[in-house]
Amino acid sequence: MENQTIKVEGMTCGHCKSSVEGALNKLDGVDSAVVSLEDNQVAVQYDESKVSSSELNEAIEDQGYDVVK
Amino acid sequence: MENQTIKVEGMTCGHCKSSVEGALNKLDGVDSAVVSLEDNQVAVQYDESKVSSSELNEAIEDQGYDVVK
Repeated sequence: MENQTIKVEGMTCGHCKSSVEGALNKLDGVDSAVVSLEDNQVAVQYDESKVSSSELNEAIEDQGYDVVK
Repeated sequence: MENQTIKVEGMTCGHCKSSVEGALNKLDGVDSAVVSLEDNQVAVQYDESKVSSSELNEAIEDQGYDVVK
């Protein structure tokens, strides 16, 4: 199990938090995803044999937010 | 038909805009509701014989935003 903190731009409210967490949690292999609006980031725990870091980024970007690389 | 601009605090993103517009448009008597995020306000066109100003405010507050009175 891998832990990764991803910096994300543009999340401003509870709806944004839900969108990003929901999109990540829907991915097979993601165990948990918790957004911090204050820190503009999301902490993701995932199984790296099932889902890749770039798939996580893609899921976030698909919700309309920018991943800071 | 009445036109009213309501000042609202806390709307930050497209989700907030949709929530407030959706809640207002669901009310019987509301003809249109358009949020401006830049101006922190929503412009509502409504039939004052069907829905009251305080019902509009209540619908906004039910979505978790503060109406500036």
